[in-house]
Amino acid sequence: MTAKQPMGQSRTIQTKLVLPPDTNHLQTIFGGHVLSYIDEIAAITAMKHAHTAVVTASIDSVDFVSSARVGDVLELEAIVSSTGRSSMEVFVSVHSMNLLTGESKLTTESFLTMVAMDANNKPTPIPGIFPETEVEKSLFETAPARRIHRKQRSEMKH
Amino acid sequence: MTAKQPMGQSRTIQTKLVLPPDTNHLQTIFGGHVLSYIDEIAAITAMKHAHTAVVTASIDSVDFVSSARVGDVLELEAIVSSTGRSSMEVFVSVHSMNLLTGESKLTTESFLTMVAMDANNKPTPIPGIFPETEVEKSLFETAPARRIHRKQRSEMKH
Amino acid sequence: MTAKQPMGQSRTIQTKLVLPPDTNHLQTIFGGHVLSYIDEIAAITAMKHAHTAVVTASIDSVDFVSSARVGDVLELEAIVSSTGRSSMEVFVSVHSMNLLTGESKLTTESFLTMVAMDANNKPTPIPGIFPETEVEKSLFETAPARRIHRKQRSEMKH
Amino acid sequence: MTAKQPMGQSRTIQTKLVLPPDTNHLQTIFGGHVLSYIDEIAAITAMKHAHTAVVTASIDSVDFVSSARVGDVLELEAIVSSTGRSSMEVFVSVHSMNLLTGESKLTTESFLTMVAMDANNKPTPIPGIFPETEVEKSLFETAPARRIHRKQRSEMKH
Amino acid sequence: MTAKQPMGQSRTIQTKLVLPPDTNHLQTIFGGHVLSYIDEIAAITAMKHAHTAVVTASIDSVDFVSSARVGDVLELEAIVSSTGRSSMEVFVSVHSMNLLTGESKLTTESFLTMVAMDANNKPTPIPGIFPETEVEKSLFETAPARRIHRKQRSEMKH
Amino acid sequence: MTAKQPMGQSRTIQTKLVLPPDTNHLQTIFGGHVLSYIDEIAAITAMKHAHTAVVTASIDSVDFVSSARVGDVLELEAIVSSTGRSSMEVFVSVHSMNLLTGESKLTTESFLTMVAMDANNKPTPIPGIFPETEVEKSLFETAPARRIHRKQRSEMKH
Ligand SMILES: CC(C)(COP(=O)(O)OP(=O)(O)OC[C@H]1O[C@@H](n2cnc3c(N)ncnc32)[C@H](O)[C@@H]1OP(=O)(O)O)[C@@H](O)C(=O)NCCC(=O)NCCS
Ligand SMILES: CC(C)(COP(=O)(O)OP(=O)(O)OC[C@H]1O[C@@H](n2cnc3c(N)ncnc32)[C@H](O)[C@@H]1OP(=O)(O)O)[C@@H](O)C(=O)NCCC(=O)NCCS
Ligand SMILES: CC(C)(COP(=O)(O)OP(=O)(O)OC[C@H]1O[C@@H](n2cnc3c(N)ncnc32)[C@H](O)[C@@H]1OP(=O)(O)O)[C@@H](O)C(=O)NCCC(=O)NCCS
Ligand SMILES: CC(C)(COP(=O)(O)OP(=O)(O)OC[C@H]1O[C@@H](n2cnc3c(N)ncnc32)[C@H](O)[C@@H]1OP(=O)(O)O)[C@@H](O)C(=O)NCCC(=O)NCCS
Repeated sequence: MTAKQPMGQSRTIQTKLVLPPDTNHLQTIFGGHVLSYIDEIAAITAMKHAHTAVVTASIDSVDFVSSARVGDVLELEAIVSSTGRSSMEVFVSVHSMNLLTGESKLTTESFLTMVAMDANNKPTPIPGIFPETEVEKSLFETAPARRIHRKQRSEMKH
Repeated sequence: MTAKQPMGQSRTIQTKLVLPPDTNHLQTIFGGHVLSYIDEIAAITAMKHAHTAVVTASIDSVDFVSSARVGDVLELEAIVSSTGRSSMEVFVSVHSMNLLTGESKLTTESFLTMVAMDANNKPTPIPGIFPETEVEKSLFETAPARRIHRKQRSEMKH
Repeated sequence: MTAKQPMGQSRTIQTKLVLPPDTNHLQTIFGGHVLSYIDEIAAITAMKHAHTAVVTASIDSVDFVSSARVGDVLELEAIVSSTGRSSMEVFVSVHSMNLLTGESKLTTESFLTMVAMDANNKPTPIPGIFPETEVEKSLFETAPARRIHRKQRSEMKH
Repeated sequence: MTAKQPMGQSRTIQTKLVLPPDTNHLQTIFGGHVLSYIDEIAAITAMKHAHTAVVTASIDSVDFVSSARVGDVLELEAIVSSTGRSSMEVFVSVHSMNLLTGESKLTTESFLTMVAMDANNKPTPIPGIFPETEVEKSLFETAPARRIHRKQRSEMKH
Repeated sequence: MTAKQPMGQSRTIQTKLVLPPDTNHLQTIFGGHVLSYIDEIAAITAMKHAHTAVVTASIDSVDFVSSARVGDVLELEAIVSSTGRSSMEVFVSVHSMNLLTGESKLTTESFLTMVAMDANNKPTPIPGIFPETEVEKSLFETAPARRIHRKQRSEMKH
Repeated sequence: MTAKQPMGQSRTIQTKLVLPPDTNHLQTIFGGHVLSYIDEIAAITAMKHAHTAVVTASIDSVDFVSSARVGDVLELEAIVSSTGRSSMEVFVSVHSMNLLTGESKLTTESFLTMVAMDANNKPTPIPGIFPETEVEKSLFETAPARRIHRKQRSEMKH
C-alpha cells in the first residue's frame, strides 16, 4: 500500500465560458450541463489522486442556488475530501462570474463518490490522504458523517 | 388557475445509443453524461406539463447501480410525480440495454425539482396533477415525504 | 434460424429538444439534423430486432411537410416493418410538438433499409417478424409493394 | 426578376475527415451523418444561388453504395441543377477516399429540393440558371423528368 | 480612463481531459483542438481584464514540442501580459499530464493579441496593468520587444 | 524513395457554414474555431500527399484581418507548399463569404508544418513535390526563406 498523499495534490480548477448551445430559451444554462461539468472535474480530480481510471458511484443531492447565462464564466474547483479502500469522496464547488461586472456568486456545491478501477474494470485500492489547510481539515473531518448519511439514504431506498 | 391534468400526460421516453465520445478508457459511460440526459428528459417532461420554460432547482442524490458501455442503449422514462405552486417533482428512471443480448437492467433512478419560469425569468404557477394508474398513485402519495426530507437536507447544509 | 419475433418488440421512441445549434437564421431546424435523428432511431430499432450491428443501405425519399423551431420537441417513433434475409425495412415517423401550446403535427415519415452485419462486417441472417396490431398489419402487408418500387428505382438509376 | 445565373456559380466542395464519433462499433460511418453532410452542402449551394435563407423541402431516395471508415475522407460536391419559382433542385455526390492508398470511390448521390425563404419565413422567388458544361447540361435537361417522378411519388403517398 | 489593474487578476486556469473525438488514428490530440483551447482561455482571460467582449486579432507562431494522448489531461494557464489602447497581449502555456504516472510536460506556449470590442463591434479602451511577481515582471518587460517583432512580421507579409 | 508528386494533387477545399455555437455575444466567430478548421484542412492535405497519419509540428503566426458572422460561409483552401524529409509545409487560406450579398473577403492565411508519422508514431519519409502553375511556383520558391525564418524564431525562444 502506498504512502498517504497531501489532499491538495488532487486540487483541480476548470473555467468554462457559457455558450448558446448550453442554454434554454431564457438563455439560462441547463442544470444537466452543470452536472456534466461537475462529474468531469470530479473524475479528473480522482484520477490525479488514484493514478487509475475511475467511475462515478454516486452524486449527493445538488441544489442550484443561482443560475448562469450566456457569456458568463463558470469556475469549478474540486478536491479529494476523503478516501476509502477503492473509493474517493470528491468535493466540487461551482461559481458563476459575470464577465462584464466581474461579480462572482455560488451556483452550487456537491460531493461525489468516485471508485478507482483496474484494467479489468474491478475496484482497486488507492492511497490515503492527509489535509494541510484549515479548509481541507474541515472537509476531511466532516467526511465520516456524510458517509453515514449516504449509507442511511441508500438503505432507505431499498 | 387551470384544471388538474392527468399525470400520464407528461410521460416522456428517450432512447440513446452509447457512443465512444460518451465513454472513458474502459469504455464505460461517464456518469456526467447520464446526469445530463436525466436533466434533459426532466426538462421536457416538466415543459409538457407546465407549457412554460423551466429551470432545474435541484436533483436528489443519484446512485449508479450498474454501468453502460459503448453500443448499449440507454432507455430513459420520466413523469411529473408531484406539483407545488411553481415547482414540479419529476421522477426519472434509466435502464441500459445490451443490444446484442436484449438484456436490460436498471442504471439509476432519480427525482428532480423543476420550476416553471415566465418570460421575465420569475417562477410562475402551474396546473396540478392527478394520478391514474397504481404506479402513478404510489409515486404521487410518497411525494410529501420526499419533500419534507428535501427540506431537512437543505436546512442541514446551512 | 431463430423463431419469428413480434414486430412491436423493436418499437423505439425518441424525444429531442430543438436547440439553437440545430437551426438556421430563421430558427428552423436543419433538414439534415432530422435525417440524422431518423437514421439513429432506425439503427437502434434494427439492432433491437437483429441483436447485431447494422448499417444503413438506403433511405426512401423524405418530404418535410412542416417545420420545427427552437424550443419545440421532436417525437420520433420507429418499428421494423418488414424483414428479408439480412435486411430490415424500418418505418420512422417524426412529429414536432410546440411545448407552449401542446400542439403536435407531422413533420415527416420515411422508410429505411438497414442491414445486419456480423463481426467481420458481412451481412448476416436475421429473424423474421409477425405483426399484431392493425397498424402493424397494414405496414407489414404493404411492404412487398415498396420493395418492388425500390428495386425499380434503383434500376432506373443505372 | 433578376437575370439568369450560370449553374457553376453555385458549385460547392466539402472535405470531411471521418472521426470516431461519426462511426458505429464496426468503425463504419453512420448513414445519418452522411445525410446530414449532404443536407448541409445542399443548403450552402442553394444559398449561394438564391442569396436568401433556405429550407429543405425534400430529399430523393438515397442508396449507400459503399461505406467509409474512421480515417477516410469524404468529398462532397454540389450544384444547383434546376430552378422553379422559389424552389431549387440540388445535386450532391459523395465520394470516400482512403487516405493511405489514395483510392476514391462513390458513396452515394442524391437530389434535394431546397426552397428560398424570405425574412417572414415564406417562399420567395429566385433567379433562374443556365448550364455551361456538358455535365451541367445533362443534369439540367433531365430535371423535368425527375420533377414529374417526384410529383407522382408524392401523390402516391396520399 | 480607469485605474491600472494587477496582472494577476486576469489569471485563468483550465483543465481538459483528452477524449477519443479529440484525437487521430494514433490517438494523438489534433493540434487544432489545442489551438482552439488556447484561444478560448485567452478570450476568457482578456474578458476578465477588459469587462467587455473581445476578438482575437492574432496568435504568434506555435510549436508543439510534445504531444498528448487519450486519457491525458491538458492544463492551460493564461494571463494578460501587456496592454495597449484597446488590445491585450495574453500569454498561454499548455502542459499535458499523464494521469497514470502523474508526470507533466510542456506541450506548447503562445502569445495572442485580443482586442476589446464595444456593443457596436468597434475597438474600445481598456485599463492598464501592473505586474506583481517576478514571473509577471519578466513577461511584462519583454512585451515591447514582442510587439516590435509582431509589427515587422506583419509588414513583411505585405 | 517514391517519385515526386505534383503539388496540386494535395489541394483540398472546405466550406463551412458559421453557426451560433461558433460565435461569441457579438455573433463573431471565435478565432479558435478558425484555427481548428485551418489545422483540420492542413492535416487532410498533408495526409493526401504523404498517405500516412500526420501530426502538427507548428503553425506560423496568424493575423485575423477580417471577421465572419453567423450565416456567413468560410471557404478554406490548402496545398502542400514544400517538403522536407518527413515534414511538409502546408499553405492555408481562409475567405469568408456573406451569402446574402455574395461578397467574399480574406479572413486569414497561414503556413503549418505537418510531420508524417509511421504506425509506431515516429517521423517517416515522404515523397517530394513539383509545382506546376505560377501560383504553385511562387509558393514553392519562397519556402526556403520561410524555413530559415522559422528556425531563427525557434532558436530565439530558447
Ligand atoms: C430555483 C429558483 C428559481 C428558486 O428561486 P426562489 O427565489 O427561491 O423562488 P421561490 O422561493 O418562489 O421558489 C420557487 C419554487 O422553487 C422551489 N425551490 C426553490 N429552491 C429549491 C430547491 N433547492 N429544491 C427544491 N425546490 C426548490 C420552492 O419550494 C418553490 O416551490 P413552489 O412554487 O412549488 O412552492 C432559483 O433558486 C434559481 O434560479 N436557481 C437556479 C436554477 C438554474 O438555473 N438551474 C440550472 C443550472 S444553474
Ligand atoms: C417546403 C415548404 C416551405 C413548402 O411550403 P408550401 O406552403 O407548400 O409552399 P408552396 O406551395 O409555395 O411551395 C414552394 C415551393 O416548394 C416546392 N415544394 C413544396 N413541397 C415540396 C416537396 N415535398 N418536394 C419538392 N418540392 C416541394 C413547391 O413545388 C414550390 O416550388 P416552386 O416555388 O419552385 O414552384 C413547407 O412545406 C415547409 O416549410 N416544410 C418544412 C421545411 C423544413 O423546415 N425542412 C427542414 C426540416 S423539417
Ligand atoms: C482586430 C481588429 C478589430 C482590428 O481592427 P482595426 O480596424 O485594425 O482597429 P484598430 O486599428 O483600432 O486596432 C485596434 C487594436 O488592435 C491591434 N491590432 C490590429 N491588428 C492586429 C494584429 N494583426 N495583431 C496584433 N494586434 C493587432 C491594433 O494595434 C490596435 O491596438 P491598440 O488599440 O492597443 O493600439 C479587426 O482586424 C478585426 O475585426 N479582425 C477580425 C477579428 C476576429 O473576428 N477574429 C476571430 C476570427 S476571424
Ligand atoms: C513534431 C515532432 C514529431 C518532431 O519530433 P522530433 O523528435 O523533433 O523529430 P525530428 O527531429 O526527426 O523532426 C521531424 C521533422 O519535424 C520537423 N520539426 C520538428 N519540430 C518542428 C517545429 N517546431 N516546427 C517545424 N518543423 C519541425 C523537423 O525539422 C523534421 O523535418 P524533416 O524530417 O522534414 O527534416 C514532435 O515534436 C512531436 O511529436 N510534437 C507534437 C506533435 C503533436 O502531437 N501535435 C499536436 C498537438 S500537441
